Amino acid sequence: MTAPASGPAPGPAIVLVAPQMGENIGAAARAMLNFGLVDLRLVRPRDGWPNVKAVAAAVGATVVLDRVRVHGDLAAAIADRRYVLATTARPRDFVKPVLTLREAAVRLRAAEAAGQPTTVLFGPERTGLENDEAVLADALVTVPTNPDFGSINLAQTVLLVAYEWRQAADASPAERFEAGGARPATREELMNFFAHLERELDRTPFLSNRQQRPSMVRNLRALFLRAGPTEQEVRTLHGVVAELARRGADEAG
Amino acid sequence: MTAPASGPAPGPAIVLVAPQMGENIGAAARAMLNFGLVDLRLVRPRDGWPNVKAVAAAVGATVVLDRVRVHGDLAAAIADRRYVLATTARPRDFVKPVLTLREAAVRLRAAEAAGQPTTVLFGPERTGLENDEAVLADALVTVPTNPDFGSINLAQTVLLVAYEWRQAADASPAERFEAGGARPATREELMNFFAHLERELDRTPFLSNRQQRPSMVRNLRALFLRAGPTEQEVRTLHGVVAELARRGADEAG
Repeated sequence: MTAPASGPAPGPAIVLVAPQMGENIGAAARAMLNFGLVDLRLVRPRDGWPNVKAVAAAVGATVVLDRVRVHGDLAAAIADRRYVLATTARPRDFVKPVLTLREAAVRLRAAEAAGQPTTVLFGPERTGLENDEAVLADALVTVPTNPDFGSINLAQTVLLVAYEWRQAADASPAERFEAGGARPATREELMNFFAHLERELDRTPFLSNRQQRPSMVRNLRALFLRAGPTEQEVRTLHGVVAELARRGADEAG
Repeated sequence: MTAPASGPAPGPAIVLVAPQMGENIGAAARAMLNFGLVDLRLVRPRDGWPNVKAVAAAVGATVVLDRVRVHGDLAAAIADRRYVLATTARPRDFVKPVLTLREAAVRLRAAEAAGQPTTVLFGPERTGLENDEAVLADALVTVPTNPDFGSINLAQTVLLVAYEWRQAADASPAERFEAGGARPATREELMNFFAHLERELDRTPFLSNRQQRPSMVRNLRALFLRAGPTEQEVRTLHGVVAELARRGADEAG
């Protein structure tokens, strides 16, 4: 999923405009790489570049740090880009579409599919992008936080953008079960277990009510069927029933 | 969007099991509140509670910190919950559905719509949840990170869960339980059944292999949890175990 250290990177370039803290640059790099983004660009980082605090905070995301490019102004940083989004936490004084993160991810994917290099802009930690910077974007992106408590940091915003971009790749159905290829039980194996369980219960007062027996049996079967047992689990259940049924007799004997 | 300091909170309770760093607890609280979650529970926090580093890292998310509850074990922390998800970064040795974050959010919303209190479990920073803890969940949740670089921290995982939960607000509540208003069993009711079953099995040779016992117990618990038993079904299961265990003795007597 990672790209080679050179050549076009997948997904949007992440542009941090005037980032203040090296820690946040490193944390942004780490957040990006978690979801396969590797193209990080810095515009006038306050503490220069390279930055040892960024390296520490990147926690091994060196493939991102190694290819960081530093630019003197935003226009240079996005000169090779076609579709540009600007993150913002507040309304702006110009007219521009505002997208949710999820909508933004769909637009990014669509632009990429059309061969357009994309990018997402992030402003300085405290102040966000200047209006003159945000206006360069095709659209604004906003994180729909709690109106009473919007307190999301730079790297977290990068994380959510990268996450949504990754999610927009495929709507492929998720996996089902873990546990190394355990084979689901066949209906025959399940029916054999039901027969075993019900045979043992018929030797107790549990199913002795003739009228209720059919519904009791159905409910027990439904319960076990809902669990979708594996073949191994059905064998375990046989063992449970056999051992429980045998136990009292052994003790009495 | 925030809830009052008392009364039922919206959305899932976030349970941090044995969190190590106060900073991470505070950052988790902040991440939660960004998306309207306020019910944070701690199981055996390493450095005790309250924790000044957590307060600093929460950056004003006091509505969350003020209602934190601390529990001695996981079972107590989730006793009042019905639908339980466990976050994990690695495969487990039992059979349980694995959901993406997005699927998890839809399931959480559906459970909430059905009146079931929900919760999401997070393990310690370095090691994640123990198998014996993860098995108590209805399903596992995994963050689909870069296979070459999965490096997402505790608060970021909480952020993504809270973000997806918030986003799922509009998604139509999916299917869930049939069976005319049958109440799903609480975790406490399920744990009582597990204790009963395992107590009876401990009186047989079935669980006598010391080395295999923990994994046998986990697999049985996973099986019954997958079925999502109702309160009535748990009572039936108690009856099944009691009757089977009693049967042989009666016959011998």
